[in-house]
Amino acid sequence: MKLSLPPQAILLPSPELIIGTFGSDGRPNIMNAAWGGIACSNPPCISVSLREATLTYHNVQQVGAFTVNIPSEKYFSAADFVGITSGRECDKFKETVLTPEKSLLVNAPFVKEFPYALECKLVRQVELGTHTMFIGEIVGLVADSEILSPNQLPDIEKARPMLWGSFGNMTYFGIGEKLSDAFSVGNELIRN
Amino acid sequence: MKLSLPPQAILLPSPELIIGTFGSDGRPNIMNAAWGGIACSNPPCISVSLREATLTYHNVQQVGAFTVNIPSEKYFSAADFVGITSGRECDKFKETVLTPEKSLLVNAPFVKEFPYALECKLVRQVELGTHTMFIGEIVGLVADSEILSPNQLPDIEKARPMLWGSFGNMTYFGIGEKLSDAFSVGNELIRN
Repeated sequence: MKLSLPPQAILLPSPELIIGTFGSDGRPNIMNAAWGGIACSNPPCISVSLREATLTYHNVQQVGAFTVNIPSEKYFSAADFVGITSGRECDKFKETVLTPEKSLLVNAPFVKEFPYALECKLVRQVELGTHTMFIGEIVGLVADSEILSPNQLPDIEKARPMLWGSFGNMTYFGIGEKLSDAFSVGNELIRN
Repeated sequence: MKLSLPPQAILLPSPELIIGTFGSDGRPNIMNAAWGGIACSNPPCISVSLREATLTYHNVQQVGAFTVNIPSEKYFSAADFVGITSGRECDKFKETVLTPEKSLLVNAPFVKEFPYALECKLVRQVELGTHTMFIGEIVGLVADSEILSPNQLPDIEKARPMLWGSFGNMTYFGIGEKLSDAFSVGNELIRN
């Protein structure tokens, strides 16, 4: 039976985006954000929505750059930790034993232990309510050589990203079984 | 070894968003979009980025409304099909044997067979390059009663959404094993 329910910001699955920034004092910080996604292919852009209460919000505004780091599933505890603590109260890199490494392209740190990160320059900012959407142009990508596919792009089966079940099921998951190839299986439905 | 790679719009995992629209002639259409994500909690908003070449782009602009449908993994062929065909050339609902049902809240159809859909009113449009980002306010949610969690929200383990491995691995996946509870496991890292 179909039910009509009150509006909710609930997307399944939600990604786990670890946002890396420097403060104007140069101090590195990371936070966990699930509100975001790719915004454009060319120029490649990604959006991340943040509350003004977060340190990352102010860092992005002041410095104009951030990284989007994709954690492997084995880092689920660290990914959770950086979402429930504030960089104002602790050094999240130190507490999680993760290593900030400065991007060569933008003024933001990426997480050395994570399989890959997008290096972003802030290009647009959209105020929406509780959250402000920050749109970054992806100017580079740093990745572990071991997680690349033959076309030199991050391979999901090697990167083993995690995902979040959102508010209906407050749980992290790994990726599951392969269902089929994309951009091809649908051809079987095309009538000749 | 860390490698610096050319910029790429590659997010792992990427969601599978099936966008439902009416044309100005009332004809229902669906397309598959992977560029999008939650944009704000309150008001709840979601963004979807579309190329001008798509019929959906023009439908959203003309009608000002759309739905974001989350397909269950068993619908991977249909989800693929509606991403590689154009509603200008065929009736995608008919070809996939999916059923358009008119939302009671917005002027857009949702997919009856899929576990849930977000009903959205267009509130903002951001031109970025190849893609335009359409931000919709989520004004309602329609869901199968069987996929709800005790708090009456879509449960990822019951909805069984699919995800896309992006350009490094052109493959669809289901969700995998539970890693841990969210907003709690990180507490173990907090030093007392």
